[in-house]
Amino acid sequence: MNSKDMIPAAEVLDAQECWRLLREASVGRLAVIVDDHPDVFPVNYKVDNESLVFRTGTGTKQQALDAGIPVALEADRVSAEFGVAWSVVVKGRAVRATSTDQAIDAVGRALFPWQGIGKDYLVRIEPDSVTGRRFTLTPTTQWTTPLDDATRAGIE
Amino acid sequence: MNSKDMIPAAEVLDAQECWRLLREASVGRLAVIVDDHPDVFPVNYKVDNESLVFRTGTGTKQQALDAGIPVALEADRVSAEFGVAWSVVVKGRAVRATSTDQAIDAVGRALFPWQGIGKDYLVRIEPDSVTGRRFTLTPTTQWTTPLDDATRAGIE
Repeated sequence: MNSKDMIPAAEVLDAQECWRLLREASVGRLAVIVDDHPDVFPVNYKVDNESLVFRTGTGTKQQALDAGIPVALEADRVSAEFGVAWSVVVKGRAVRATSTDQAIDAVGRALFPWQGIGKDYLVRIEPDSVTGRRFTLTPTTQWTTPLDDATRAGIE
Repeated sequence: MNSKDMIPAAEVLDAQECWRLLREASVGRLAVIVDDHPDVFPVNYKVDNESLVFRTGTGTKQQALDAGIPVALEADRVSAEFGVAWSVVVKGRAVRATSTDQAIDAVGRALFPWQGIGKDYLVRIEPDSVTGRRFTLTPTTQWTTPLDDATRAGIE
């Protein structure tokens, strides 16, 4: 099959739909720049109005997540059953949320720290942009399925 | 509940286990640096020995994915049922795979281009490092569940 046959239809989502979808998910992958190299790790986030909050532990990423560094957080969802998927990306600045902000601190306690062990603290992403797309996949392009054996044999 | 009660147990995975898990999944989130800002988007990848290959379409990200730029690709899997999760990150350089590499080109045709519409091409990640962890979650910290109504009411 030619790869062109497998291109999914893509629909650009407006900001309102992006935020609605972000509220449906709870795990995002946060991209940061550490020593001029991109890094990415999963976080449990929650939507707080039109910003995102999550907890992180101490460590390399914590040090990188100082006030105002640029970040991108992506969330997505796939329904293999219905052959649809969406992906939303929020780009912005990560700012440390202070404990004096009681509403945010309460949000934070509903999360668990995926990243790092020990003392954790709360980070807020102040978004500069939110973009998203919805994809419709054909039955032959389900993308959560591992390689079938025939394909794997050809690779390895 | 204090957030410390919800810290999951984390186990560091060796490289062999990381590659095994990478073979189990087929969707990763690729982090790149575009104009000094991190970006992240999902890709369908496949493991080819100890490197990763995926297709991308033309566009901003394609331009960024020129020969040798630093990238990080993260894959993860969660079993809410069993309360376990893993996350693996491959860091390295993205190099354009040439069509003269027939084995790789064949791999590429088994993928579909998540990113971009139109002509696509194949990218290979030459890994500098692969790291991973496995987490054991408590029943109260399932991280694929949307906010419950009570929590949501407290936020919004």
